[in-house]
Amino acid sequence: MSMNTFGRVFRFTTWGESHGPALGAVVDGCPPGLEVSEEDIQPFLDARRPGTSRFTTQRNEPDQVKILSGVFEGKTTGTPISLMIENTDQRSKDYGEIAKAYRPGHADYAYDAKYGHRDYRGGGRSSARETAARVAASAIARLAIPEVEITAYVSAIGGDEIDRDNIDYTYIDQNPFFCPDHLAAERWEKLVDEARKDGSSLGAVVECVATGVPAGWGAPIYAKLDADLAAAMMGINAVKGVEIGEGMAAAALRGEDNADEMRPGAAGEGPEFLANHAGGIAGGISTGQPVVCRVAFKPTSSILIPRQSINSEGEAVDIRTKGRHDPCVGIRGAPVVEAMMALVLADHMMLHRAQVG
Amino acid sequence: MSMNTFGRVFRFTTWGESHGPALGAVVDGCPPGLEVSEEDIQPFLDARRPGTSRFTTQRNEPDQVKILSGVFEGKTTGTPISLMIENTDQRSKDYGEIAKAYRPGHADYAYDAKYGHRDYRGGGRSSARETAARVAASAIARLAIPEVEITAYVSAIGGDEIDRDNIDYTYIDQNPFFCPDHLAAERWEKLVDEARKDGSSLGAVVECVATGVPAGWGAPIYAKLDADLAAAMMGINAVKGVEIGEGMAAAALRGEDNADEMRPGAAGEGPEFLANHAGGIAGGISTGQPVVCRVAFKPTSSILIPRQSINSEGEAVDIRTKGRHDPCVGIRGAPVVEAMMALVLADHMMLHRAQVG
Amino acid sequence: MSMNTFGRVFRFTTWGESHGPALGAVVDGCPPGLEVSEEDIQPFLDARRPGTSRFTTQRNEPDQVKILSGVFEGKTTGTPISLMIENTDQRSKDYGEIAKAYRPGHADYAYDAKYGHRDYRGGGRSSARETAARVAASAIARLAIPEVEITAYVSAIGGDEIDRDNIDYTYIDQNPFFCPDHLAAERWEKLVDEARKDGSSLGAVVECVATGVPAGWGAPIYAKLDADLAAAMMGINAVKGVEIGEGMAAAALRGEDNADEMRPGAAGEGPEFLANHAGGIAGGISTGQPVVCRVAFKPTSSILIPRQSINSEGEAVDIRTKGRHDPCVGIRGAPVVEAMMALVLADHMMLHRAQVG
Amino acid sequence: MSMNTFGRVFRFTTWGESHGPALGAVVDGCPPGLEVSEEDIQPFLDARRPGTSRFTTQRNEPDQVKILSGVFEGKTTGTPISLMIENTDQRSKDYGEIAKAYRPGHADYAYDAKYGHRDYRGGGRSSARETAARVAASAIARLAIPEVEITAYVSAIGGDEIDRDNIDYTYIDQNPFFCPDHLAAERWEKLVDEARKDGSSLGAVVECVATGVPAGWGAPIYAKLDADLAAAMMGINAVKGVEIGEGMAAAALRGEDNADEMRPGAAGEGPEFLANHAGGIAGGISTGQPVVCRVAFKPTSSILIPRQSINSEGEAVDIRTKGRHDPCVGIRGAPVVEAMMALVLADHMMLHRAQVG
Repeated sequence: MSMNTFGRVFRFTTWGESHGPALGAVVDGCPPGLEVSEEDIQPFLDARRPGTSRFTTQRNEPDQVKILSGVFEGKTTGTPISLMIENTDQRSKDYGEIAKAYRPGHADYAYDAKYGHRDYRGGGRSSARETAARVAASAIARLAIPEVEITAYVSAIGGDEIDRDNIDYTYIDQNPFFCPDHLAAERWEKLVDEARKDGSSLGAVVECVATGVPAGWGAPIYAKLDADLAAAMMGINAVKGVEIGEGMAAAALRGEDNADEMRPGAAGEGPEFLANHAGGIAGGISTGQPVVCRVAFKPTSSILIPRQSINSEGEAVDIRTKGRHDPCVGIRGAPVVEAMMALVLADHMMLHRAQVG
Repeated sequence: MSMNTFGRVFRFTTWGESHGPALGAVVDGCPPGLEVSEEDIQPFLDARRPGTSRFTTQRNEPDQVKILSGVFEGKTTGTPISLMIENTDQRSKDYGEIAKAYRPGHADYAYDAKYGHRDYRGGGRSSARETAARVAASAIARLAIPEVEITAYVSAIGGDEIDRDNIDYTYIDQNPFFCPDHLAAERWEKLVDEARKDGSSLGAVVECVATGVPAGWGAPIYAKLDADLAAAMMGINAVKGVEIGEGMAAAALRGEDNADEMRPGAAGEGPEFLANHAGGIAGGISTGQPVVCRVAFKPTSSILIPRQSINSEGEAVDIRTKGRHDPCVGIRGAPVVEAMMALVLADHMMLHRAQVG
Repeated sequence: MSMNTFGRVFRFTTWGESHGPALGAVVDGCPPGLEVSEEDIQPFLDARRPGTSRFTTQRNEPDQVKILSGVFEGKTTGTPISLMIENTDQRSKDYGEIAKAYRPGHADYAYDAKYGHRDYRGGGRSSARETAARVAASAIARLAIPEVEITAYVSAIGGDEIDRDNIDYTYIDQNPFFCPDHLAAERWEKLVDEARKDGSSLGAVVECVATGVPAGWGAPIYAKLDADLAAAMMGINAVKGVEIGEGMAAAALRGEDNADEMRPGAAGEGPEFLANHAGGIAGGISTGQPVVCRVAFKPTSSILIPRQSINSEGEAVDIRTKGRHDPCVGIRGAPVVEAMMALVLADHMMLHRAQVG
Repeated sequence: MSMNTFGRVFRFTTWGESHGPALGAVVDGCPPGLEVSEEDIQPFLDARRPGTSRFTTQRNEPDQVKILSGVFEGKTTGTPISLMIENTDQRSKDYGEIAKAYRPGHADYAYDAKYGHRDYRGGGRSSARETAARVAASAIARLAIPEVEITAYVSAIGGDEIDRDNIDYTYIDQNPFFCPDHLAAERWEKLVDEARKDGSSLGAVVECVATGVPAGWGAPIYAKLDADLAAAMMGINAVKGVEIGEGMAAAALRGEDNADEMRPGAAGEGPEFLANHAGGIAGGISTGQPVVCRVAFKPTSSILIPRQSINSEGEAVDIRTKGRHDPCVGIRGAPVVEAMMALVLADHMMLHRAQVG
């Protein structure tokens, strides 16, 4: 079943293909009375937008968002908000080869196996261009949870990690890698350039931290805050792993080292936690600590180095994926991870007050 | 919002607390005509059941399942199947301390912050006992997808990994660790014994492989097979990380190394894949390769080593969690991971045929 | 697809067959901290319970409800509440005939056409016994909306309507018909007796009024309060028509006669409405007036007068449905209509505060 | 909660206001490989379109639909289909009065009570213009169930009913009332003209018949085919009553008269039914007979005859709703009823094969 809607109360539905006339999102369930205009959404799209440096795809899309409904006199009305982004740089070209050959690592073969008919141009619906719609929707989600501050950054490229002692949030938007560590950014410049020149690509890790989330958001058992985040993150193109707090490393810890001990907090506040191995979530419910997640992006599947594959006739072919591609798709993943965090948290804020008032 | 239902077409709803009279699951959307009896479900519960070795909690529950509806003359009718498991070993004891103090790593504080009122006995609803209901439901899910074979095993305890060259599936059920490597099992015996004697606990990694999944299950964008698996796995008690295929390690690979190259397959079959970095899923849709996921369990939060915390009055306390606990909760996580894999796959089989016929 | 869950935030899932060991409901999404015990639920089950007069089926079920989870120290915890009612009066008898023959008006043929395998004993899952589970769930829903008063009564049997000038709510529970008009109740006694003696059955209309619903519950477009009520009511066994406010009669009115004119209300209150043709709902959202709906129950399909039918082999048969049946199933429909009103309103109260706070 | 999505597998989400730039629908879950173009959708929009006779509103909208996604090389791909209709005839006028005064019978007051902020221009989101999006979506739903034939017609206006012996389906599209009885159409011409000249309005009944629905679509208990139809129909603007088969009249029948007797059907077919009081649905599941429903539309609330009301300041006002309005909104309701029938049936076809295969 095709399922292009995400969320439970704060929901959004996206549509559109890489090379169709436009793509968009319909945001439903948004609280009324939030002040919003296209100018509030555009900066988030600009951050995700391709063509801003040599380290991202050279497809040049202005990604101008239009609000088509749900906002009146500058404020949300509580009815669905339709957001549309027109595609302008869909190069007309011969898709003959790609139309029939299945690119390894891409969804080409799986889509054909499922549907038997697909828009192969630029990956069609499976293109990461769809994430522009999520980013647009997330700008509205953020308005619903003004108390929450969300920051995502790239913490590793090609296995080369940032130094956590060097993290400087103000630097994130000042380099083409959403990197918070200026020394790492320098190294990555070389690393990504080399991969690009080799016709290869690199994977990356994106880390995301949300502060200001009060204790109590989330749900027991099957709509746990961490489970919903895991679904949201794993659903981003090219993501293969999701961690909350200690993540996979928790499996190597002993109980006493993994405990987030508590001390009495300031008057009228929750406990003071002495650690945050849990990443701000226990039993599926937020604890009041920062919500921390980490997401692994595989290297871009579109590479110039030839790979063996088959075509839709089942014949053996060799594929080099020419065209405009991100040498490291994880870089532009950072704004998308941030977007999904905002969308999940806004939904859970509303779910919480539905049940608890 | 409380959300105790999982799935889209093949759905199940669980209920029950650790120390209540019973717990159960209502399975809805099951295909009609499947032959099933309590004897088909019981072995899966027996595998997960506590008290079977000194490496698991000494709570002694027979976990006998009763079918209360939805099965007639030995076959499912397509109507909801109510499964109930009575709790028999809820020791009467003084919960005075635990009733008020928040155990670090547990959901105690978060539940109280959310709901203001909770059943603290044995963790109440947040107890891993709830997973018995999932395991029972999964036995029925398996019947809906007989073509699929699912195997889960523990691949690391306390950071000590199995040797992949030693994997022997037949050994998994012949040791108390669901370990496929007999050398690792020997080492773990010592490791877990030590942790238990120290009053400490250990984390673990569970790996799960599903073979026989045809290409085409899953969905684009927001009900991706990998996203649904991520939600299912992250929603298991104590899980902090989920990986599909290469998982977090994909972030350190280059594009040409991560590509799952394809060659023409046998006549009438899909392609022959030369690798499975993707873990059997591309673009959210199965490729026909084995579906592979890996799940990190944190060490059991209930330990005898005293930890600092607060109580519900906000006062500082020190906590030692006495009682019967798994020294490594990840061990009994293996049958639960297997259960969730079955539940997600059955659902996606049905979702697939809903749309595609 | 089998779908045994109702509601969006305040949800309940029912299970169980007429002649199985038990039936039940799992209530999910309930606010925490509501005081509830089995004694709060039982009176609603007693009102719906069979065998209380000669005008209802002689099946004798105590319908004792047990709370199996979700309530601790007398208060809801916000986790799922499992309610179970054991079946005690499933007479062992020869189902040979009914097992194979399709009773006209019943779901027998349709279930077989869908599922190919069904529990034919007493109608199995399609029996109106399932509504006991809804009634149990509704007792909890009422606790979530204490400001709302809901009253349902039978307003017509076999085409004989009450006189609206005679309506006396206090009389409803003092006669076997849930009739608010003592003169009508006298007439119905004769009417139903006659039908029963003839081996026939009668239809009925149930009217339901909810006061205290504030303006603003409901939703635009597809989860309209009236649409959700229509689904809830049409989903009750034997219901064939649902009306809100004027209902079908609205189609014969002129605009000026159908207008619910408004005058300024008391200070700090909403408008004073001069009429309630709308039945308290406009644009899918409550207006603050009483919510009024009317529901038509067809005559009981199980009758002694022989009817032509076929059996599962496709052979012609004549059917007389012997056994214990309600001569007018609409009578015991009144508590069920009341239950569904409560369940829908509790859900919409929570949906409202999810979006609006 | 705002809920602008309808359906379970075949889903659609609508957006847009009466006087915004555009409105649209996103259709999700559609089977792949269906041949569809804008030309297949347009005729249905043309049937619903305003301004085609003096008996409908004089708003002149071409209602040209654009397909923005989900269709490639003339066939659906299984991914979301975005449909957009631009608004062209939103007259710029002074909304001063209507902006503040609550029109009786309209959603104005209820929306304000809920959201506190609304687009008052032409009814905003509560305008029946939204139904254009449903009609567009339904054109695609029909392609998924080619075996089903759906016909809706107006069966009464202002209490004046058609003569069922005069029904001629071929006449429905040859008169401005979707009337199947040419004598009734003549009478209605006068009736509606008079109401229009009086500045009044009339209610209507729309009847809808779907043939070719096989036995077995639908679901037990809470997603019953009739319950889903009831929700779909009651959710249409101005609808106040929904009937399946005999509808409200079933309440006045005796059991033997209401029974749909069966005889053996032709070889390899289902039973021959001797009547269809049930309207083709028993126990929530289709029986193979024609699915029949009847829907009551109240008279248009916008009338020139002054009515008492209040404004948003709570002051008494008198309202005459000037502008372009349908004198009988039920007339253009016929294509919308037909649309909702198609949408519900397509969804249930897919739900059925999800569970049963």
